[in-house]
Amino acid sequence: MPRVSIAPLVRVAPDGSRTDQDLVAVEAPLAIEVLHQSNPPAPEPHLLQLGVFMRTPGDDPALGMGLLFAEGVIRRAADVLGMELTMDADEVSGTLRVTLAPDVNVDTAALARSGVANTACGLCGRLSTTTHDAATRSRPIATFPLSDTTSGVIFQLPDRLREAQAVFAKTGGLHAAGFFDQTGRLIDSAEDVGRHNAVDKLVGRALMAGGPHPPAHDRILVVSGRVAYEIIQKAAMAGVRTLVAVGAPTSLAVQAAREAGITLIGFAKDKSFNIYG
Amino acid sequence: MPRVSIAPLVRVAPDGSRTDQDLVAVEAPLAIEVLHQSNPPAPEPHLLQLGVFMRTPGDDPALGMGLLFAEGVIRRAADVLGMELTMDADEVSGTLRVTLAPDVNVDTAALARSGVANTACGLCGRLSTTTHDAATRSRPIATFPLSDTTSGVIFQLPDRLREAQAVFAKTGGLHAAGFFDQTGRLIDSAEDVGRHNAVDKLVGRALMAGGPHPPAHDRILVVSGRVAYEIIQKAAMAGVRTLVAVGAPTSLAVQAAREAGITLIGFAKDKSFNIYG
Repeated sequence: MPRVSIAPLVRVAPDGSRTDQDLVAVEAPLAIEVLHQSNPPAPEPHLLQLGVFMRTPGDDPALGMGLLFAEGVIRRAADVLGMELTMDADEVSGTLRVTLAPDVNVDTAALARSGVANTACGLCGRLSTTTHDAATRSRPIATFPLSDTTSGVIFQLPDRLREAQAVFAKTGGLHAAGFFDQTGRLIDSAEDVGRHNAVDKLVGRALMAGGPHPPAHDRILVVSGRVAYEIIQKAAMAGVRTLVAVGAPTSLAVQAAREAGITLIGFAKDKSFNIYG
Repeated sequence: MPRVSIAPLVRVAPDGSRTDQDLVAVEAPLAIEVLHQSNPPAPEPHLLQLGVFMRTPGDDPALGMGLLFAEGVIRRAADVLGMELTMDADEVSGTLRVTLAPDVNVDTAALARSGVANTACGLCGRLSTTTHDAATRSRPIATFPLSDTTSGVIFQLPDRLREAQAVFAKTGGLHAAGFFDQTGRLIDSAEDVGRHNAVDKLVGRALMAGGPHPPAHDRILVVSGRVAYEIIQKAAMAGVRTLVAVGAPTSLAVQAAREAGITLIGFAKDKSFNIYG
């Protein structure tokens, strides 16, 4: 599945213009549907259309897994019995069918709620919500103690995430999210046109790899852009204690991070950052 | 309604840290509901919960107007009989009730569809969509002829939009969208934590001001960030012929702009830009 495509263009500068071409990040729709066999079994399993999500192709199962985890529908990878990805003829659009395990206690209320949420704005489309949601759905955790050593590590993280952004480097068009350990070593990273997708893919991959639980245990989450509420909600669900953003946080992100016990760092650069508390 | 709030923080640099405070952009939920009296009248008007949208407070009626226009629910400001904004006790969250005019032919299919769409990703949550939607819902327009004079104008637009971003200047946390005339003069601009909200507010204000129809007639739309499909869809509905983005376009944005007859300019800087075709 191509993550970049070639676009013809005209480059214009004060001294004239010339035709050229460049790579652009692929954005294409992925329909996600969830098949759930209730317990006790109904005659037919319940098929829920979660919606159509604009994303960069690749890692679609991880996106589905991470999204369902962030929404509280599943609690572990084993809650998913299987995933079937069907691509359209254009090779970038497709449908992901997630079959939930029949013997687990799936949060059907969360499932119904996630049907109107989405990866670009998980709150949008919900009929009622409060910032309290994230706090109550995640465990309050003591604020991460920030030593001088840790500061030195954090100064390096934005550059290290950027180095891992293979597609961004070509297109300038993707958000990235990365897990780092406490020494600043990159564990994994994901890229997507949607900032929330990048986090979902990262968390979904960690779940599928059978790593620590919660998936962000002892890991620092670094995101390439700004931080709004929804990123904090996803981070809290994944057990993130330290979130480092290259961009600015919103008011609700600061508030939700405080309630979820997440140390929120913004405007991270190689020589400075802000800790919001 | 405050658009910025004060956040306490710790500024960390290699030579030490100090406590301080800074302004952050306000992000807060707005529930939008639409009241529609069918024709012939039913005993009760139909109340549809469009959803909860994360946005920066201010210009909420314009956001609602622009969103309904972008979704094809309404075709002009007169299709809205009234809007009632009720703020919560926190003074940033609230509910916008939009009463549609009873005598107009509201696109109820679009209304239902927009109930699962949202301003951060209007496609997300829709059960089926194709890039063809934007093309068929907007009029194909001849590509804007780009003279040397026009190039000189375009070089100036990113800086002029940035100058108009009062809240971004304070917080670094907002997207902006601006309408400019063909000489590069700023007509209006809007800011929001959501890039789509900024466009909706801009278009909504133009509709409410009773300006040209379509609202972007003869105007250049400039956006501060990247361009994905949904921005093109909103631009096409507003009659935009020239869209200038400071950031990168996605593959689907390039394709949709081509189909909608929009001249798409990306990576706009003071000395260069790309025209995607």
